[in-house]
Amino acid sequence: MAADWLDEVRWNADGLVPAIAQDAASGRVLTLAWMNREALACTRATGHAHYWSRSRQALWQKGERSGHRQAVREIRIDCDADAVLVVVEQTGGIACHTGHARCFFRRLEADGWREDEPVLRDPRTIYGD
Amino acid sequence: MAADWLDEVRWNADGLVPAIAQDAASGRVLTLAWMNREALACTRATGHAHYWSRSRQALWQKGERSGHRQAVREIRIDCDADAVLVVVEQTGGIACHTGHARCFFRRLEADGWREDEPVLRDPRTIYGD
Repeated sequence: MAADWLDEVRWNADGLVPAIAQDAASGRVLTLAWMNREALACTRATGHAHYWSRSRQALWQKGERSGHRQAVREIRIDCDADAVLVVVEQTGGIACHTGHARCFFRRLEADGWREDEPVLRDPRTIYGD
Repeated sequence: MAADWLDEVRWNADGLVPAIAQDAASGRVLTLAWMNREALACTRATGHAHYWSRSRQALWQKGERSGHRQAVREIRIDCDADAVLVVVEQTGGIACHTGHARCFFRRLEADGWREDEPVLRDPRTIYGD
């Protein structure tokens, strides 16, 4: 496949697009992360989600330290080509570095943002630090 | 409720956060749009999704022209408070201005991005222009 599918993406001024990861089994929205051209190309080529870490300024394979990789079932793009949706099989059932199943574990309640989903695994045992 | 829940959001340099809309009934990811502080406050206050249009630089109630409003079931925030997830009931079953059910109607196939979801309604009949 030619690389022009990558040229169709409307990268922002930093060369990034927001990428939503959705769990293929449960349908739950797991994470919102960012991809640059290389991350999206690697996601496609390897079948595992890769992102661009804005804080570390580095390409990163999801799960490279935790083992909580994301096997990609499908990759989608939106109408104006500036957002990506990846449907994934989440290894270990944990997408968030906090040990929650997903990053969206807080809900807006009457008194503010409140956790309503449990920590499934102590993050210290995930990362060993 | 005090406004400090709005202060907990990590707005970007433009005062925005990406906001994912997910259909409450089907679980499908409908759109990725952007909210500023006012949009998120209005979403909470009215129970209908409001966004910030980066192209028009204006607050916008989803469906204000099309009638395809989004009634909010829940509002979530991610671990580092820089992305929002709104779970919605999508009026008319159409979230995209193109007349598709959702904006993510293109999938990456062997030969590039390909539409694999239908136009449900001619957009000229949605907007009357």
